[in-house]
Amino acid sequence: MIEKVLSRIDSNLDDSLERLFTLIRIPSISTDPTYADECVKAADLLVSDLKTLGFQASRRDTKGHPMVVAHHEGPHPNAPHVLFYGHYDVQPVDPLELWDDDPFDPKIKDLNGEKIISARGSSDDKGQLMTFIEACRAYKQETGKLPVAVTILFEGEEESGSPSLHPFLHANKEELKADFALVCDTSMWNANTPSISVGLRGLLGEEIVITAADRDLHSGYFGGAAANPIHILAKIIAGLHDNDGRITLPNFYDGVEETPQQILESWEALGRGAKEFLGPVGLSQPSGEKGRSVLELTWARPTAEVNGISGGYEGDGFKTVIASQARAKISFRLVHQQDPEKIREAFRQYVRAQLPEDCHVTFIDHGASPAIQLPYDSPLVEAAQKALSDEWEKPAILAAMGGSIPIVGDFQTLLGMESLLVGFGLDDDRIHSPNEKYNLKSFHKGQRSWARILSTIAKKDKKNG
Amino acid sequence: MIEKVLSRIDSNLDDSLERLFTLIRIPSISTDPTYADECVKAADLLVSDLKTLGFQASRRDTKGHPMVVAHHEGPHPNAPHVLFYGHYDVQPVDPLELWDDDPFDPKIKDLNGEKIISARGSSDDKGQLMTFIEACRAYKQETGKLPVAVTILFEGEEESGSPSLHPFLHANKEELKADFALVCDTSMWNANTPSISVGLRGLLGEEIVITAADRDLHSGYFGGAAANPIHILAKIIAGLHDNDGRITLPNFYDGVEETPQQILESWEALGRGAKEFLGPVGLSQPSGEKGRSVLELTWARPTAEVNGISGGYEGDGFKTVIASQARAKISFRLVHQQDPEKIREAFRQYVRAQLPEDCHVTFIDHGASPAIQLPYDSPLVEAAQKALSDEWEKPAILAAMGGSIPIVGDFQTLLGMESLLVGFGLDDDRIHSPNEKYNLKSFHKGQRSWARILSTIAKKDKKNG
Repeated sequence: MIEKVLSRIDSNLDDSLERLFTLIRIPSISTDPTYADECVKAADLLVSDLKTLGFQASRRDTKGHPMVVAHHEGPHPNAPHVLFYGHYDVQPVDPLELWDDDPFDPKIKDLNGEKIISARGSSDDKGQLMTFIEACRAYKQETGKLPVAVTILFEGEEESGSPSLHPFLHANKEELKADFALVCDTSMWNANTPSISVGLRGLLGEEIVITAADRDLHSGYFGGAAANPIHILAKIIAGLHDNDGRITLPNFYDGVEETPQQILESWEALGRGAKEFLGPVGLSQPSGEKGRSVLELTWARPTAEVNGISGGYEGDGFKTVIASQARAKISFRLVHQQDPEKIREAFRQYVRAQLPEDCHVTFIDHGASPAIQLPYDSPLVEAAQKALSDEWEKPAILAAMGGSIPIVGDFQTLLGMESLLVGFGLDDDRIHSPNEKYNLKSFHKGQRSWARILSTIAKKDKKNG
Repeated sequence: MIEKVLSRIDSNLDDSLERLFTLIRIPSISTDPTYADECVKAADLLVSDLKTLGFQASRRDTKGHPMVVAHHEGPHPNAPHVLFYGHYDVQPVDPLELWDDDPFDPKIKDLNGEKIISARGSSDDKGQLMTFIEACRAYKQETGKLPVAVTILFEGEEESGSPSLHPFLHANKEELKADFALVCDTSMWNANTPSISVGLRGLLGEEIVITAADRDLHSGYFGGAAANPIHILAKIIAGLHDNDGRITLPNFYDGVEETPQQILESWEALGRGAKEFLGPVGLSQPSGEKGRSVLELTWARPTAEVNGISGGYEGDGFKTVIASQARAKISFRLVHQQDPEKIREAFRQYVRAQLPEDCHVTFIDHGASPAIQLPYDSPLVEAAQKALSDEWEKPAILAAMGGSIPIVGDFQTLLGMESLLVGFGLDDDRIHSPNEKYNLKSFHKGQRSWARILSTIAKKDKKNG
């Protein structure tokens, strides 16, 4: 049966492209209030398209841009139920003069022998979300139903921090709950190798402000006797790592698991070592925990990084001042079961312990989200891996991501759902930049990939159910 | 004979005040080009006044504001020869609305039972330099001569960084060379206690710019593998001091002498401990080298202070960036025989040694001047101390200054002269601020002090010569 669905996808390709282009032509830029009506238009277009596929679909207004929610039943009451997430909003297009074409007039072009779709949103995320809709369409056209029960959630504020998403999930928990989530907003390993992101690092943000004297002091008059908050801050930062690059906070590594040897070996085999990873940005040697590869360091190990520091005189020339205050913004990337709030408290205790009695510290909480980790051997991952390997004729990589995607944390925390992250973007798609593109192959084989994944998930259920 | 000179100073007081007021009424603000002509006027006024005293005086134009140079012979060819330095330019007066009176319309007022001269420049430095001129005047009027040979150098750019002074000294070495310099631009210990500054800390300024990756990086994607220049900088700064507050650079303390016990005891007796020194700025405990008093730390010990630091995202909120660059401005206060250039080189070697192989550092030289130290038991200091103690009926304090006065370094380096720093300003004179004042007592007894100092110096010479 899957072969028929895949053939239908192939024969639908021109039409599916036209549907994508219609969506792309709506300039649904979420950060600019000028385009608020365009966001509504994009949501309405998706609602009406999903209705033609038999979804119960509706536009759900929020304080910001609307959500799209749609439900479709499965082939039988015990069929698995998936929640698919994507976003219809796009990044602004300035500087417009750097675009080769109108960013909202999509075109098929040739790039290094590959056909590409060139337009804002072609990859992030309109092209990606349409791969899933088109897979559903082919299924419906070919079989009259979908292989699993499907709920769809599209938001229109992903590019502006998703302010409405958390409250919306909270208010609609029961309606949105499914067995697991599918998220299509990530990239492949390379143009021919699909990838599943099974790990996402969490993020903890803290800012510290050290105050010594109650005013800036002259370093000639006071230097040598008055506390210098920059020195205190430097000591705090320098003491966060030991000589092996490990973080020194007590119990920091509680909940951090060692990555299975076979996974480490599969990462090793990808050929992205220190040279390949760091060379393009002008570096050559890994700086973190000793004895670990750059992929392990960025995919499966926690970090402490100072993202900004300031204090005293920062202009041109020189001023002999001892500052009253110095501040730093510090983030921790978290993995596996690390508890953000325990780490925040350990960090604050550590900072307080470094402080001279007559100095003060203020902490500013910049949020926290735990890491996400699917077991490498979960049935969901295995199903997706098989489907992707069949479609691309190369084993799908079980990757992790160094960054954080808050929505996935919310699915975990609020809805108790794991998320499967599969996407068909490429590192050179120039998302957020001029001349964004999506490979036609990504769009086409992405649809086929989702069809295969849905089919495998449906079978998995039969086997296990 | 000195008693007659002192009486003459007393009877001249009203006239001397009128001469000071005439000088103050010229708004010789050096930083603002609008007032360039006023600087010339002030210089001309001083030249003509000095001529009436028998000085060979002239205005000496520079690329900036003019110098005033004047010479007067001594009573005999073997008399000591002093160079007196002061400056006729003043600070700007804004914000004007914070002044109780027109800053250039000097008045005698009462402040807490003391008579004060209220005006811009009353203390810094017009009032101070006039104490010396009036002492010379009284001598000349009473005895027909001066007790020592005197060269006078007034500049008009002290408040704007003295750009012309170094080249002028260099070009006029022979003309300006004397046995030693007298500088009147400092303060008394308090309203009743005179002070001689025998030590001035030197200053070495360095800026370091650490570059890691060749662009800012995303801390999710690269964090844990890419070098963070803020961490490197923090380690460099934290490593500059050991746990006892001593500076760790090799050979840093070469040339640093221990202060004689009796001097330390005299400082101890001044009653300015950690509480009195640090309390007014909201601190309570000395932060530098352990086991030393705040006066020793700021007057007689070297320091390393970070005056400014910056890197990464410094705005509101949070950005998960790993910066490409981080920078810090660092100054060293130097004492006694410390060699600034050797210390600069030791610092640079230390920084380079902390740097990962794939990172870079750029050094920016922000100048250097060595410390100045008169031996506590030098005949010059002893002569001045006796004269001041006689006038104020309290022992003059042998103090040091935490800050640097570049001119004094130039006198040492270019002209091979030691400088005696004696001034009659007070800490509450609000120099550089609205409502600047000079105590009438400072102006009057300052004149008498100089007369006594010149007299003692003249005698010293007879005894030793």
